[in-house]
Amino acid sequence: MRDAYHEELDSLTGKLVEMTRLVRSAISRATTALLDADLQLAESVISRDAEVNATFADIESSIFELMARQQPVAVDLRMVITALRMGTDLERMGDLAVHVAKVARLRHPDSAIPPETRSTIVEMGQIAENLVTKAGSCVASRDVESALELEQDDDAMDRLHRRLFRNILAKDWAHGVEPAIDITLIGRYYERYADHAVRVAGDVVYLVTGARPS
Amino acid sequence: MRDAYHEELDSLTGKLVEMTRLVRSAISRATTALLDADLQLAESVISRDAEVNATFADIESSIFELMARQQPVAVDLRMVITALRMGTDLERMGDLAVHVAKVARLRHPDSAIPPETRSTIVEMGQIAENLVTKAGSCVASRDVESALELEQDDDAMDRLHRRLFRNILAKDWAHGVEPAIDITLIGRYYERYADHAVRVAGDVVYLVTGARPS
Repeated sequence: MRDAYHEELDSLTGKLVEMTRLVRSAISRATTALLDADLQLAESVISRDAEVNATFADIESSIFELMARQQPVAVDLRMVITALRMGTDLERMGDLAVHVAKVARLRHPDSAIPPETRSTIVEMGQIAENLVTKAGSCVASRDVESALELEQDDDAMDRLHRRLFRNILAKDWAHGVEPAIDITLIGRYYERYADHAVRVAGDVVYLVTGARPS
Repeated sequence: MRDAYHEELDSLTGKLVEMTRLVRSAISRATTALLDADLQLAESVISRDAEVNATFADIESSIFELMARQQPVAVDLRMVITALRMGTDLERMGDLAVHVAKVARLRHPDSAIPPETRSTIVEMGQIAENLVTKAGSCVASRDVESALELEQDDDAMDRLHRRLFRNILAKDWAHGVEPAIDITLIGRYYERYADHAVRVAGDVVYLVTGARPS
């Protein structure tokens, strides 16, 4: 049987995995809200971000207690330090899903997504979900190899981001400046969401090996 | 005389203040590079971001050593934990200054800044510098009252950000979509820079009082 100290460390991992689950659901619903101009779904992303924040607050206070009472060293110390960093990134991913949802809400009942950008946004949403799912598995399994693979998936997001700009800058763009602004911001939100997922995976590498991926 | 342990904690504060100085200089030069389409200055912001990152890496390893050897408690533990968070925010502020500089570089020898947005960008640059200067003073002095004041300065940034959107969406906007995209991203970078400065100040409040500003 594991002692109370190691159970607390395990529970930290469990809460981080729970955060990945929450922010995955948030970006998934935000993408659908955006594509379908679904106000109710957008509102649910916005209001349920409080759960993400509460889970992070819970992680922060666990970390503080663990550090004060147990004074972890070596890999356990890396665990609490990276948990703090991962939690910060995951909380931010929740915020970014909220930003996406707010664009959907702002333009409702219209869609913020002109038809020619739709398929790119669909793919960006899929990559974002895929990245956070993998990040969550890495946190749970501490598998360095799959953590390192996330970098490649992020390259796919960067390619989609560039395609999105080509969409907006195409000669036949007929939607004017306002939708271009929306799409610019939306693209940025997905790109940042992916960056944070990659950072979470990078922290798993650091946790296990003691060195950051180059 | 202070003992070695407290000297290390002080040196952590010193390095954080140094980071605020570096990222202040970065946003100041990036703003000038943008306004004057100054390629050399833009390049200097981009290449010198390595100094910010190195200072943060130094802070991270100091923290790790401190935690492993000294097992700090109470306010000292809050100090090392907040130092990690502040360092993360300050490093990101350096990245954002680099993003601004890269827009200047991308459009050089042209200016990325249409005349009607110029005065707003000038003010955003000033507020950004002002915020990071104040954040640096708060880190050094641990003065809660001035840390709480930063929220108000951030409101000024939000107002400028909204004004920037009004500039782009004005009926007489004659620059088309590409400059609108640039300005949208630039506005976002300054806004995020300010948010991170406010977070640093919020961490000072947490460090001193043990509670986050509401």
